[in-house]
Order: sequence, then structure tokens, then C-alpha cells
Amino acid sequence: MRSVNLVLMGFGNVGKAFASLIAEKSALCRDRYGLDLRLKAAFRSTGGYFAAPGSDIMGIAELIASATADPPGWKTGLRLEEVLIDLEPGVLVECTPTELKTGNPGLSHITRALDRKWHIAAASKGALVLKFRELMARAKKHGVQIKYSGATAAALPTVDVGLLSLAGTEILGIEGILNGVTNLIMTRMEEGMTFLDALKETQSRGIAEPDPSLDVDGWDAACKILLISNSVAGTNFSLSDIALEGIRGVTIEDIQKAKKEGKALKHLGRLIRDGGRDKAEVKLTAIEGNHPMFHVAGTNKAITYFTDTMGAITVSGGKSDPRGTAAALLKDIINIYRS
Amino acid sequence: MRSVNLVLMGFGNVGKAFASLIAEKSALCRDRYGLDLRLKAAFRSTGGYFAAPGSDIMGIAELIASATADPPGWKTGLRLEEVLIDLEPGVLVECTPTELKTGNPGLSHITRALDRKWHIAAASKGALVLKFRELMARAKKHGVQIKYSGATAAALPTVDVGLLSLAGTEILGIEGILNGVTNLIMTRMEEGMTFLDALKETQSRGIAEPDPSLDVDGWDAACKILLISNSVAGTNFSLSDIALEGIRGVTIEDIQKAKKEGKALKHLGRLIRDGGRDKAEVKLTAIEGNHPMFHVAGTNKAITYFTDTMGAITVSGGKSDPRGTAAALLKDIINIYRS
Repeated sequence: MRSVNLVLMGFGNVGKAFASLIAEKSALCRDRYGLDLRLKAAFRSTGGYFAAPGSDIMGIAELIASATADPPGWKTGLRLEEVLIDLEPGVLVECTPTELKTGNPGLSHITRALDRKWHIAAASKGALVLKFRELMARAKKHGVQIKYSGATAAALPTVDVGLLSLAGTEILGIEGILNGVTNLIMTRMEEGMTFLDALKETQSRGIAEPDPSLDVDGWDAACKILLISNSVAGTNFSLSDIALEGIRGVTIEDIQKAKKEGKALKHLGRLIRDGGRDKAEVKLTAIEGNHPMFHVAGTNKAITYFTDTMGAITVSGGKSDPRGTAAALLKDIINIYRS
Repeated sequence: MRSVNLVLMGFGNVGKAFASLIAEKSALCRDRYGLDLRLKAAFRSTGGYFAAPGSDIMGIAELIASATADPPGWKTGLRLEEVLIDLEPGVLVECTPTELKTGNPGLSHITRALDRKWHIAAASKGALVLKFRELMARAKKHGVQIKYSGATAAALPTVDVGLLSLAGTEILGIEGILNGVTNLIMTRMEEGMTFLDALKETQSRGIAEPDPSLDVDGWDAACKILLISNSVAGTNFSLSDIALEGIRGVTIEDIQKAKKEGKALKHLGRLIRDGGRDKAEVKLTAIEGNHPMFHVAGTNKAITYFTDTMGAITVSGGKSDPRGTAAALLKDIINIYRS
């Protein structure tokens, strides 16, 4: 049995779902994988919960929700450094909001943790999108791993399929429906709703953010195709390399036109390898009825890898909700200690 | 750079494709994975090719095909023991025909190799289907691994997605189109061909065997659902536990009837978890138009895992040919040395 310390950064929907999930799955992690997961600290913007020496804060999400007990270890203004210095290195779980200008606060959390030889499981994208090679090199230098399933379509496996299941192949191209919000909005528009009504509905259900720009302008999908392509296909894209088309301009008529031709309009992320030149884009594309993503509707996602020796491999489905993202983070933690 | 000795058992279509593929991919394996693959011996039923000390027989498939040189190292009646004793342990690549009564010759090859601390990458199914737990325990005892992507839908990733990409989930059920031959025959029947004509065409194209029973009576799909379920879902099925329906009785009318109802008749392998009771089957099933496998036609295959935390994950596609199987064997070898 191996004891693994966890520190959680960000206690929003994903952070809370992660705290709940590891409490629920702790017996499974011990029995099946020989891992005794110990949530030692959890941070939100104003401070953090930090377990007393020898204890942990597993189940803290339920404690806070039930309000039947004072959440243990709350300290206003608690700093990450205090926690990292005090603990045997384990995995830092990065769930703060994605920010694409500086990558912070995730970038600061990740670099501090790497420098103290903590592994990283990330759901936030900013730091990795802006500093992918630097962070991977820094992790290598310290002999630790960075995993980011939670940032690359979460419950839909993308990077680990590309790296492990397709090991030994050449990646000839990638395409994917990588954002559940835009796919859901376009599914509702196919049913006759306007863009604005579909967006409002998606926001009122808590699926889209109040500021929907990351999703509907394509930034989220761009981050994902960048991270997947740089990881699996060895490219070195920056965000500015990715040709970006959002879905704000789509009309019901555009969608109906595709439908009449037996096609479906989808918001696709793509890596296109044209001889020696690699191009990445996020674009509206009408796909044929026999395309493997034709029926990928609602919040479902999908990715296709085109390879030299195995043909085309498509992965589809995967829950688009905080629990699915939490499950992707847990998977990454298990696989860090497997290898 | 790590030097890895390989011994290939079986020099039929898959064995030859494997020998060609590792010659073609040797630079990639060195550059990307730090593995210097060395094919040291290759066996067929009458004897084997065995490289002289310090050399290898990479490229032997091309040498034999071109007949421009005498294939090096041929020795009639060469025995596996002679080769294993002589070499630093690496990976035994098992590509002999699948036999489901005794599991031989594969079973004998695998046990001998395990006992000399060789890893196994298997495309043949018999030994694993008949002795799954015994062989896995034997490998564990010797500190080596058995991988069998080549025996579990080959280029379509199944077991590694289940074990790695879905780590930490509970598997609530599995279903798959796991046999490319029956899927192709039924696709041709949907186009109006009788079962016998479609079978003959598939045989004349070298896709179905002269004795098609393993495929059309469902044994091959049964082997795959058994291996996948026992690996990923922790079941302990024997072949006799699997309810088996072949496709010899399917008529064009059956297929047209499903089509008229907007459905497609598919030959599905399934793990059904009903409370505490697990059931496995291979059965003809009419699936709806929005089912993720509705469009999986021809020699394509697919698998869906139903999970507790990530929803349903479907993988589809993957080349059904000897090169695709060879690529699955190469992937397994790379991943053996990654972990």
C-alpha cells in the first residue's frame, strides 16, 4: 500500500466533485491499485483547509455541504508554500479557472509544486497551453509527471489513447468535437432554437459559464487541440497558431441547410498535416452521414486519430460534467503511480 | 537506448507483417521510445530462423519475399528452448493460429517463455482464453508482463483503454462489434448478397479463413469479449460461460427487416452486469439509428464501455488486416518497456 498526499487547488464545481469522488472511491483505490489517497489540503481564493499532522480532509466536500460540522483546518490566507514544505510530495490537483493571458493562478501553483517534486494532475488549461514545453521539461528535470486528462476533454480519453494505445504509429491527422457546450448549443439549434436562446438555456442549466466566450468563441476547443496535438503528434503550436472560428455567427438556416444535404454542421478542432507543414484550426464543418461523429450530439464529445498503421481510431462519448472531470483527474493520479 | 530481443512464433500473414513492420519502424522505436528492437529468431512449423550471435534477422520478411538472398539462419527442426537459453530475455511474439481445445502450440510457447522471464505479446488467443488467470499469475511470479492487444481486436484499442483510460471507474457493462469478418459479411448482405456469396467473397479476398467457423460461429468474438471482460471488469469467464449465436442463420430478410425499422442488425459481444450476476454473450442484435455502432460497417470494429463516473465511452475503427495486428503487437512491446 502506497500513501499518496493530495493538495487540491480550486474548490469550485470541479474541485468539489473531485473531493467527493476520492472520498467515495478511496476503498477502490486501496483494493484495486494499492493507493491510499490522502487529501491533505484544499485551497480556494481566500485561503485553504489544511489537515492537522497525521490526519486528512477526505470527505470535506460533504462536510461543507452538510454544514453539520465546522470544516476542519480552515485558515484564511493560507499559502501553498506552507503546505508544500510540510508534506511528503504527492500530487497537486489543479482545478482553478482557466486564464489564457498569464496562465495564472495555475501556472504559479504548478511551477511551485514541480520545484518541490510534486506530480501534477491538471483540469485547468492556461498554464499548459502557454508553457507546455517548459513545464514538461521542468517536470522531467525533477523526475515527476504532469497529466492533464482533465484539461483535454476530461472523461473522453484523448491524450492517453494517443500516447499509449497508438504507440508506434505516425499521427497523420486529428479531428474532434472537443467542446460539449458548443455541441449542445448546435444540437438545440438543430431542434429549432436560436443561438441566443440555446446559449441562455445552456447557461441556466449551469453547463455554459456566465461569460461564454471561452466556449462559444472556440478558445476552449483551441486549447484542447493544441494540448492534444503537442502531446501526441509532437507539434509545437502556440494559441496564436490556431485558426479560430466561433459559433456566434451560426444561424438555424446554416444548420438546416447541412441537414437537408444529409450532413451535420459540427464545430471541429483539427490537426492537418500537409507534407511537412502542420496546421491547426477550430472551424465549423459540415460532415457526412457516415462520418463517425455524425451522431455525436448534445454534450458528447469525440476525437479521431488518423494513423499510418492502425487506420482511423475514433473515441466518443464521455460525461461532460464536474464528476466526469473529477474522474479524469483520479484516472491520472492512478496512472502516475502505475508507471 | 535499451536493446530488446524479440522471438517471433508463427510466420504466417501476421508474423510476416510483424517482421516487416519492426524493420520499417526500427528508427522510430529508437528515436521516440529509446528501444533498439532486435528480431533474433522467427519460427514456422517446420523449424526456425535464428540469427548468428551478435546479429539479428530484422528485414527477414523482405529477404524471403524477394528471394534475392538465402534467408539467414534457417535450421529445420529448430526448437524454442535452444533459442531461449541462448538469449537475454526480451519479448516472445506469439502469432501461431488460435486453437481453442488445448491452446497449443501457443500455450506451450508462452509457458516456456514466461518460465525463462520473457515478456509476451500475443496475437493468438487459445492459450489466454483457456488459461487466463494461470498465465497472468505465472507472469507475475516471474516479474514479466503478458500483453494481448493483438488478440483483443488488434488495431482497435480495447484492453488498454479499459485498464488505463478508464482507471478508477466501475465497469457497468461492455458491448462491441468485435469481429471484422462477420461485420463485413453482414454489411454485404445489407447490400443484397446472400450469406454464402458474401462468405465466399470474403474468403476469396483473404479476409475469412478457408474454415470460417471461428468467425461466423462467433468463437472469435467470444474469445475477445472473454479476454476483455476478464481483464478490464475482473470477471472469470470460461468459453463455455458465453452464450453464443453465430451468423450462419441470418437471412437478407432479417437484415432488411431491421433496416425498414430504422435499425441495423449487428453481431454484438456483450458483458451484462445484472446486480451481482455477470453474463457474457455473442448475439445478433438490432440497434437503433443513434446507437454509436450504427455506422460501424465492413471490417470496422467498435467497443463501448459503460462506466459509473465517465458515462459511456466508445472506441471505433482500427484496421482489420495483418499490418494492423502487427501494429498492435508493436504497441504492446513499446508499452511493456514504458512501465
